[in-house]
Amino acid sequence: MAQDVYAHLAANQDRTLAELIEFASIASVSTDPVYATGMAAAAAWVVAMLSAAGIDAVRIMPTARHPVVYGEWLGAPGAPTILVYGHYDVQPPDPMDKWESPPFAPQVREGRLYARGVSDDKGPMLIPLKVAAAFLATQGSLPINVKFLFEGEEEIGSPSLEAFIRENADLLAADFALSADGAMWRIDEPSVTVASRGMAGIEFTVTGAGKDLHSGRHGGAVANPLHAIAHLVASLHTADGRVAVDGFYDDVVALTPVERVDLAALPFADSDYLAQVGAPALFGEPGYSTLERLWTRPTLEVNGMWGGYQGAGSKTVIPSTAHAKITCRLVPAQQPSAIIAKVMHHLDIHTPPGVHLTIQNDHHEALPYQIPADHPGLRVAMAVLAEMSGREPLLVRMGGTLPVSELFLRLLGIYTVFFSFSTADEDFHAPNEFFRIHRLHEGLAAWARYWQLLGENR
Amino acid sequence: MAQDVYAHLAANQDRTLAELIEFASIASVSTDPVYATGMAAAAAWVVAMLSAAGIDAVRIMPTARHPVVYGEWLGAPGAPTILVYGHYDVQPPDPMDKWESPPFAPQVREGRLYARGVSDDKGPMLIPLKVAAAFLATQGSLPINVKFLFEGEEEIGSPSLEAFIRENADLLAADFALSADGAMWRIDEPSVTVASRGMAGIEFTVTGAGKDLHSGRHGGAVANPLHAIAHLVASLHTADGRVAVDGFYDDVVALTPVERVDLAALPFADSDYLAQVGAPALFGEPGYSTLERLWTRPTLEVNGMWGGYQGAGSKTVIPSTAHAKITCRLVPAQQPSAIIAKVMHHLDIHTPPGVHLTIQNDHHEALPYQIPADHPGLRVAMAVLAEMSGREPLLVRMGGTLPVSELFLRLLGIYTVFFSFSTADEDFHAPNEFFRIHRLHEGLAAWARYWQLLGENR
Repeated sequence: MAQDVYAHLAANQDRTLAELIEFASIASVSTDPVYATGMAAAAAWVVAMLSAAGIDAVRIMPTARHPVVYGEWLGAPGAPTILVYGHYDVQPPDPMDKWESPPFAPQVREGRLYARGVSDDKGPMLIPLKVAAAFLATQGSLPINVKFLFEGEEEIGSPSLEAFIRENADLLAADFALSADGAMWRIDEPSVTVASRGMAGIEFTVTGAGKDLHSGRHGGAVANPLHAIAHLVASLHTADGRVAVDGFYDDVVALTPVERVDLAALPFADSDYLAQVGAPALFGEPGYSTLERLWTRPTLEVNGMWGGYQGAGSKTVIPSTAHAKITCRLVPAQQPSAIIAKVMHHLDIHTPPGVHLTIQNDHHEALPYQIPADHPGLRVAMAVLAEMSGREPLLVRMGGTLPVSELFLRLLGIYTVFFSFSTADEDFHAPNEFFRIHRLHEGLAAWARYWQLLGENR
Repeated sequence: MAQDVYAHLAANQDRTLAELIEFASIASVSTDPVYATGMAAAAAWVVAMLSAAGIDAVRIMPTARHPVVYGEWLGAPGAPTILVYGHYDVQPPDPMDKWESPPFAPQVREGRLYARGVSDDKGPMLIPLKVAAAFLATQGSLPINVKFLFEGEEEIGSPSLEAFIRENADLLAADFALSADGAMWRIDEPSVTVASRGMAGIEFTVTGAGKDLHSGRHGGAVANPLHAIAHLVASLHTADGRVAVDGFYDDVVALTPVERVDLAALPFADSDYLAQVGAPALFGEPGYSTLERLWTRPTLEVNGMWGGYQGAGSKTVIPSTAHAKITCRLVPAQQPSAIIAKVMHHLDIHTPPGVHLTIQNDHHEALPYQIPADHPGLRVAMAVLAEMSGREPLLVRMGGTLPVSELFLRLLGIYTVFFSFSTADEDFHAPNEFFRIHRLHEGLAAWARYWQLLGENR
């Protein structure tokens, strides 16, 4: 009987791809108010798709900023209930001039679909939606109970999600969460993610003179905010790449010798990684392997820094202000608020003379996360991947952050299983983001199998 | 007889202001190709005005980039010949959001005309043009011979002017140059500028990975170009404000004790200056007064620095590249090419590991300049100012750069007298640039008087 589902999914591949293209054409950038129309359109699109699939109680649920799209199907009494998570918002598309095709005009090239958000997270989040549609179309029911939570603020650190989950804890109650977001680490090695880093974000401004000054007439008499911010940003790291903020590493739990051996056993070659990112050399905190640095060590990265003239040619100006945006990635036992306080204190005491420091108030915070290796939802994911690939999936960590997993654990008491079919090399958060089209179809089959197995195992 | 000229100038004040408004409405930004139409329109406007004034041989003379507008009136045999200098190009208007009225829609507020370029240099360069028109309208002749050279590349360091002067040395031959550009240092103290700083400009890029990377997934493994450029820019100065480039001060000629006493005697209060620029404190090379730093010490200023995400909210990216633009101001005996070589070497040896440095090829260069205090053209300027104000004008230097003065000296063997009626506080190179309207009219009378005196003194 369940075979019908797989046949249905296979028969509808072209239609599913066309739907993803339609979804990815909507410019749903959550961070910039300029894209408000796109955000509303994307939420409405998801509502329409859930309704068309036959999901119940579909609705847009407002938050302080971008709404959550919710839907549920609870017609399998006695079967487990899962909370499916994904997000319909995307990263900003800039730098625009580096895209080979426009970011919101999806284009298929060599088996890949190119567009902003197609891998993070529109392609992956479409999968559970279409799997539900296939079960309901072929069998009139799902093998398990499913609640869908698609948020619109993942790319800005999910600022409204905590309040939303608190207020709707009963509605969202489930045995565990199954996340369509998260990305598999490699295309050729099945894996499940068991930990992710947390995040602490901060933005600040350095102000010198009250207005832009002519650098000839005034150069030498007043501090230049660009020099000051360079000193300040340079002070955040030692020359060899350690974070120089006092107490930054205090709460980090050191890896055990066994953990280091396990990490070293994973198939990872520095040379391959270097070729993938195209950097002149690897660089980072001394004393750790690249994988250890990526997965188990905290970082502090400046994501943007600017001030003065950026146009063609020159403009001899001492700008009034200079700006920087920072995010830290955190590992277990580090507290985002404590890290933000330490970074703020560092910026404060390292601000050079002649300028004034202003730190913006809207910090991003997310705790680091780890799921027990014997969690039943995780075992099902491993079983499906093993079945599909004929290989035992790897247990991997992830350098990125998924704030929802920490929120679900803290507020709902449930773990999150990452079961995403995007891949870490698909340039999300960069120009020319893409999603491998065969992964869309493999993901559909895998999610159907996951729900089927979970329903049978009850 | 000459009184007719002053009466004519006074009777035409409204018309002259209307013409300046028309001129300033033309967006003649030389540095950015986007404004090519504005550059051509401004050159054509100047040609039309010279022709209407009755100047001879008026023409647009092409250069490699923006043309020179030339005209002459040589009907005073035996009288001195001066080369009048000004420029019709302006600085870029950004940051646009800080203008109270649009930069190319001139607006009169409280006796000031606000628009980009109105003080630097369209208002001042209109003065000799209208003085010539007044003499020719009222007397049919000028008291001296005048050649007009209005360039279109001053704001980009006059890259074509050296070749232009070389090729047209005979055409431009004169007893000295009288510059409408240069700015008086204070509105309430008549002064003549006897020295200006030179310039050396350089732009560079730091490149890490071959593409923008997700700072969660890749943070900690590769160098961040923003960190690298911060280290690099921070390395250019010591913490107390000296330029840290090896050999930067080598060729600087130390001030004599007498020069320091003269500078200290000038009316200059740090507190007034601080209030004018609105900075939290003064800052700069230790061991020198503010005026010494502004006029007699070389500087290195970053005019622009940028990389990564600058929009609203956050984008967790490690950018592939980061950029900076630098200009140095130089004092007598410093060579721009030698300074550029030293800065390039410094950048090269201070580039942190994990990134690649690229230095752009189009450097800006201008030598520092100084005119002898007893130059006859300078004495006439002092006499006119003393006559008009009833006070002895001050001999001042200037922190900015006027490359033409050095070019005229080296290629034509003539000094340049700065006789500008803009004032140093008029926010040129910044938002809300303005020109005091009463200075327009004072400048017209002063230039008429200057030409009259110079003609009588022959």
